[in-house]
Amino acid sequence: MAMRLVIFVIFLSVQAQAQMSKDSAAFFIRDIYRQSYTERQSYEWLRTLTKDIGHRLSGSENSARAIEWAKATMDTFGLDSVWLQPVMVPHWVRGEKEQVLMMTGNGDVRSLKAVALGNSPGTGENGIQAEVVEVMSIDELKEMPDRAIHGKIVFFNRPMDPGQLSTFSAYGGAADQRSTGPVAAAERGAIGVVIRSLSTDQDDSPHTGMTILSDQIRNIPSLALSTNDAVVLSDALKKGKVELYLRTTCEMKEDVLSYNVIGEIKGKDFPDEIILVGGHFDSWDIGEGAHDDGSGCMHSMEVVYRLIKNNYQPRRTLRCVLFINEENGLRGGTEYARVAMENNEYYIAAIESDAGGFTPQSFGCSVGEYASLDTALSHMSGYMELLEPYDIELKRGGGGADISRLRPIVGMMIGMRPDNSRYFDYHHSDRDVFENVHPRELAAGAAALTSLVVLIDQYGIGK
Amino acid sequence: MAMRLVIFVIFLSVQAQAQMSKDSAAFFIRDIYRQSYTERQSYEWLRTLTKDIGHRLSGSENSARAIEWAKATMDTFGLDSVWLQPVMVPHWVRGEKEQVLMMTGNGDVRSLKAVALGNSPGTGENGIQAEVVEVMSIDELKEMPDRAIHGKIVFFNRPMDPGQLSTFSAYGGAADQRSTGPVAAAERGAIGVVIRSLSTDQDDSPHTGMTILSDQIRNIPSLALSTNDAVVLSDALKKGKVELYLRTTCEMKEDVLSYNVIGEIKGKDFPDEIILVGGHFDSWDIGEGAHDDGSGCMHSMEVVYRLIKNNYQPRRTLRCVLFINEENGLRGGTEYARVAMENNEYYIAAIESDAGGFTPQSFGCSVGEYASLDTALSHMSGYMELLEPYDIELKRGGGGADISRLRPIVGMMIGMRPDNSRYFDYHHSDRDVFENVHPRELAAGAAALTSLVVLIDQYGIGK
Repeated sequence: MAMRLVIFVIFLSVQAQAQMSKDSAAFFIRDIYRQSYTERQSYEWLRTLTKDIGHRLSGSENSARAIEWAKATMDTFGLDSVWLQPVMVPHWVRGEKEQVLMMTGNGDVRSLKAVALGNSPGTGENGIQAEVVEVMSIDELKEMPDRAIHGKIVFFNRPMDPGQLSTFSAYGGAADQRSTGPVAAAERGAIGVVIRSLSTDQDDSPHTGMTILSDQIRNIPSLALSTNDAVVLSDALKKGKVELYLRTTCEMKEDVLSYNVIGEIKGKDFPDEIILVGGHFDSWDIGEGAHDDGSGCMHSMEVVYRLIKNNYQPRRTLRCVLFINEENGLRGGTEYARVAMENNEYYIAAIESDAGGFTPQSFGCSVGEYASLDTALSHMSGYMELLEPYDIELKRGGGGADISRLRPIVGMMIGMRPDNSRYFDYHHSDRDVFENVHPRELAAGAAALTSLVVLIDQYGIGK
Repeated sequence: MAMRLVIFVIFLSVQAQAQMSKDSAAFFIRDIYRQSYTERQSYEWLRTLTKDIGHRLSGSENSARAIEWAKATMDTFGLDSVWLQPVMVPHWVRGEKEQVLMMTGNGDVRSLKAVALGNSPGTGENGIQAEVVEVMSIDELKEMPDRAIHGKIVFFNRPMDPGQLSTFSAYGGAADQRSTGPVAAAERGAIGVVIRSLSTDQDDSPHTGMTILSDQIRNIPSLALSTNDAVVLSDALKKGKVELYLRTTCEMKEDVLSYNVIGEIKGKDFPDEIILVGGHFDSWDIGEGAHDDGSGCMHSMEVVYRLIKNNYQPRRTLRCVLFINEENGLRGGTEYARVAMENNEYYIAAIESDAGGFTPQSFGCSVGEYASLDTALSHMSGYMELLEPYDIELKRGGGGADISRLRPIVGMMIGMRPDNSRYFDYHHSDRDVFENVHPRELAAGAAALTSLVVLIDQYGIGK
């Protein structure tokens, strides 16, 4: 009798660890989708995160509340472990509402809608005032004579190219004005910078975002104008000389202790092969960080939640990671990678969702140090047909900022690519709110991510 | 000299008719996309159609104004011909704002948000009042004893299934309550019907849509409640007896002369092979018919506009058709097919855009009388790779209501399939307005349709 019990236990244990047949995986994925659409779990969590907590800039009290909430929520899932990984983060504060006044030759004064760029220094209590010089690029700035720039406020006004197929490409083609424009202008003796907001829409909401500081020269106050007010300023400049008055009390304070939030289910067959799915938990301090990247974090939480709820026993170790400080420092992703390397961890796949809560179209893949892209894509094409009914495919090229530092210990780097039509209408502005996330679109992302994790967990990447 | 000129002219003419290389087609499609995204022509037309004209129910003055505007607009394109095809259409009018009052046992009276179903008869000036009986399906209704239905108002309350992958499938699974529910209830002696709106959202906007009338029995007044008020009514019924008072002065009037709007570019190589692209120009009389189907009509107009603007000389005949009366009669599509058959026309492809102005995902194909689906899909797969960069693929199954009557003289029936996440939030309600159409998503649809038309025009369907 004792012998029969032992055999029975072994049999059960072997069964639990057997690879799923593709037919079973197809049924399982269909149920995952049905549950995600019906229960809308990511959407309900996102409502709590955005409406009860709100935006979550690194180092802010809100970010601490959000971290506490996420840990408490993940504690209820039945994960093998949930922990906070400490990391020091920058603590930039916006201060009082920014003021930008436009003075034209005829004596008119007009207020323009603007927000300080993240990490920018303030103007001091009294603000600054100077003549404006408009340029369309850093190259154009560099070719101008010193006297045209020195003591002036530089206005970078190149729009995102609407003709680009991907709005991320259009963003990439204009973002240097925000990231490196202020230092380039400071190097030429400018005293301040305003940029046209990086946005696909023409409206009154300015879009913030990080500017890169110099440790060589004195950094200058930098703000983004709404796209409508960029047009107003440019039109005024066509008529003659324009001065701007800028006032922002933003400042960088001392670093603050914060955390990455991590939840894990141990793998049964290959516990040392980790599949990471994550997003970044910090957001800018305007709007609610609903698409960027509340959606990606709720997606990632739903992956492990949904699998446990369906009694799924992973073959590999699954880890959900909410990274802190992607927006203005990448300290969370950097520290996570440092600890992972210290622990000699290996990631068969690192997957990031940080392109909004829209309908997923594909997963963009690039290679880590441990895999060949061709071999992996060819192996994965053997099971990605299971996602064809959901209009999801693999594409070349992709990853994510938070997982980028893990590359030396990763097989495949994967970024989820949702429909990008609307992302930059909202991105980093007061329009990035819960109301602009659609429950079915968000659910489709959670289901697609969960399904991909199941497929990689079951069938690997062919390494 | 005269001889050389003749040779030169022949050479030019032969060149114009040569099949495009795939490389050239790829460049051309890239330019089509860039132009569609940048110029947003469909979006600007849609603004005029929805904001200056508005909704366009068959037989209404607005529909006549819209037809006039479309013809005048298409006259400016430089098409070979633009014409109006006469057709008699039903003229149903909504009359005064509908009234639905809910009376519960405790003497409370509450107004519910409702709209009459299209083609429904009115209640008469005094309205009707009766006890309500809730059912979840026509089958449930049929199994109930006569006394439970006779003289009552039947409330069909089965929601669209949120777990369906496609909202069109969910719609298909619930729409019988609206289309045949009223006649089924009338056959059992009910005096009126209210249905839960066919909607993917939970809100205060009721959704109309056609109900099918009987010519055997007396038709009864039928209305749709907003999803929120369907819950209110259902909750009240759980507590006890509920009566409803219904009042609608809607009525069917005499048929009215209306038109399909048609524009054509004659083919250079195969003028007798027609490629049709179209949508339906009528809409319901609430909202603005922005997604349903202003978007599809603007898409179709942009196809021929964009090709002429790029000096494209089609090998086959291209026809843009704005069909009238899809919503409550299909008279436009029926008359178009009758005339086409009388003229012995042949359609290599009939393509309809009637699923909203959202990001296109695929083209759904089904076979007409003249082609084999396998042969055609296999032939087309040889060039559909050109649409891979745009995340567009061919799928099996599709078409459209307006083109359905053409099947006997068509090679391939094709329906554009956009992302369907949001469609039924708006469909047939006061939320189907211009503000809920996104310019990039609409442009992507116009570009995808134009590209497909170019590919079929160049390379055929392998028949």
